[in-house]
Amino acid sequence: MERRDSQIAMKLLENKILKDGKVINNDILKVDSFINHQIDVVLTRELAKEIASIFKADRILTIETSGIALAFAVAEEIGNVPLTFAKKSKSLIVDDDVYKIEIKSFTRNISSVVTVNKKYIKKGEKVLIVDDFLAEGNASLGLVDLCKQAGAEVVGVAVAIEKSFQGGRNKLEALGIRVYSGANVKSFVDNKPVF
Amino acid sequence: MERRDSQIAMKLLENKILKDGKVINNDILKVDSFINHQIDVVLTRELAKEIASIFKADRILTIETSGIALAFAVAEEIGNVPLTFAKKSKSLIVDDDVYKIEIKSFTRNISSVVTVNKKYIKKGEKVLIVDDFLAEGNASLGLVDLCKQAGAEVVGVAVAIEKSFQGGRNKLEALGIRVYSGANVKSFVDNKPVF
Repeated sequence: MERRDSQIAMKLLENKILKDGKVINNDILKVDSFINHQIDVVLTRELAKEIASIFKADRILTIETSGIALAFAVAEEIGNVPLTFAKKSKSLIVDDDVYKIEIKSFTRNISSVVTVNKKYIKKGEKVLIVDDFLAEGNASLGLVDLCKQAGAEVVGVAVAIEKSFQGGRNKLEALGIRVYSGANVKSFVDNKPVF
Repeated sequence: MERRDSQIAMKLLENKILKDGKVINNDILKVDSFINHQIDVVLTRELAKEIASIFKADRILTIETSGIALAFAVAEEIGNVPLTFAKKSKSLIVDDDVYKIEIKSFTRNISSVVTVNKKYIKKGEKVLIVDDFLAEGNASLGLVDLCKQAGAEVVGVAVAIEKSFQGGRNKLEALGIRVYSGANVKSFVDNKPVF
């Protein structure tokens, strides 16, 4: 697929964030009205087209819950590849037919055990990780680890919104992983996002 | 949109269930390989097209997690309408800006409090409820109740797979609600689904 004008998805998303996003304590960006509770399907599809113009993959991997819609659209755009969503488990005791990793949530300050059945990431596959947010990078790094356990290759991490000042991108790029974000929040000033 | 040949999605789905579904104790149907953990995007899109040929709606409502991909595709097919996913909460104490209901999970035998922010179902809207499964109907009936609290009209309940012998359809139809399922499992015999 040819490279699209990357301004379309980015501008739509930045405008949405400025109009409808809510910043709490110069730290957390709530986007309940178009990503995390209500989903804007047009914006999601635009982002997916943009992501598919950049990455090729055999499989999309996301983590429940808020990344699923975008991940689904990307899986279609990239050529109807299978989509796996990793599951959050309350228990540390899980079946041994799964890959597992412990992930700390930035927004909720709790850890969960995240699992993927061994059937749903395969050795040698090129995997694109898709999620709604990239902040400290804990979720993405956890998914990278699951792919490593499976012997799969991570071709990139694509997210709707990145808060680049929280370091997730740096950690991923240090592992040689390409990162795409639809909107890059560089800082919050007086509870307003700065791109 | 004109009525499509309803055999396409149904046959694809029935074949998938027979080939890849796992029945546990003549009771629970596991479809991890194409709906609940790994998602078959082609099948999901076919189902969405079928659902959109039957229903019109201003909004799609689903519940996290497994219904989100299908609900997203339906929201697109039905004319890029907004999609809301209801959230499961561990706590009975929730903000008062939400509609809430307690829902018992058939497969896991636990109750959760399910909420929707009042901004994301509006009075007078025609709402189509979309989910992966319809069994006893607890989740769907809970979502119907949330719509009622909001003063919205439920135009139907559309699910990928129905286990009609567990009574969900009857309860919904008794309320005058139209039900669509991509595959209707009428019984399990020797851990095999019968359509």
